[in-house]
Amino acid sequence: MNTSKVNFNQKLGLFKEHWSPKIIAQMNNYHFKLAKLEGDFTWHDHKDTDEVFIVLEGSIRIDFRDQSVDLKEGEMLVVPKGVEHKPYAATEAKVLLIEPAGTVNTGDAGGAQTAPDDVWI
Amino acid sequence: MNTSKVNFNQKLGLFKEHWSPKIIAQMNNYHFKLAKLEGDFTWHDHKDTDEVFIVLEGSIRIDFRDQSVDLKEGEMLVVPKGVEHKPYAATEAKVLLIEPAGTVNTGDAGGAQTAPDDVWI
Repeated sequence: MNTSKVNFNQKLGLFKEHWSPKIIAQMNNYHFKLAKLEGDFTWHDHKDTDEVFIVLEGSIRIDFRDQSVDLKEGEMLVVPKGVEHKPYAATEAKVLLIEPAGTVNTGDAGGAQTAPDDVWI
Repeated sequence: MNTSKVNFNQKLGLFKEHWSPKIIAQMNNYHFKLAKLEGDFTWHDHKDTDEVFIVLEGSIRIDFRDQSVDLKEGEMLVVPKGVEHKPYAATEAKVLLIEPAGTVNTGDAGGAQTAPDDVWI
């Protein structure tokens, strides 16, 4: 039985790179990932799943084709499956992502910002 | 498309009762629930699912039959499916729970602390 707790700040201290989610926990077939965001990400969607963003520190903006949503610490958003979105952070922000194991950060869009989807810290 | 963000503190201001999780968001077939904990809960397990606790404010202890895990703000724990546990909070704590829609707070244990599993705020 694995009942190890996870401390977000301790884990956030283990990496510096942006747009490179790190897995910190698994619940059933879902992964909990920490990521540091700064600047613009790639327009993409996830065809088969919703995706949750929870802001732990700082603030981000998630652009959709028809609107933008600003999120700050203590706020969350569910990005519906199949909906194109583009995260953005003016200055470094720290977020918790929740999505099914195997979800790729750029969806089907690919490109230089695609990160490995299976890195645990 | 529902792209409304959720602010945890705003939602936490909408209820006062303890041990009565309120749904604030859905991702695929999973619910995100806020709860206020104080005192002792009931020993129980969830036969078919893991369950995530994230502490937003204060601290809690989750007792297992063979150990206890202390969790404070900024920490999370995955309680494995089928493992008996008993949450406890010496003073009021605020937590985010993540589990499949329809998960009952007392599992199969029932009792006076069983809360409805479908209350959105």
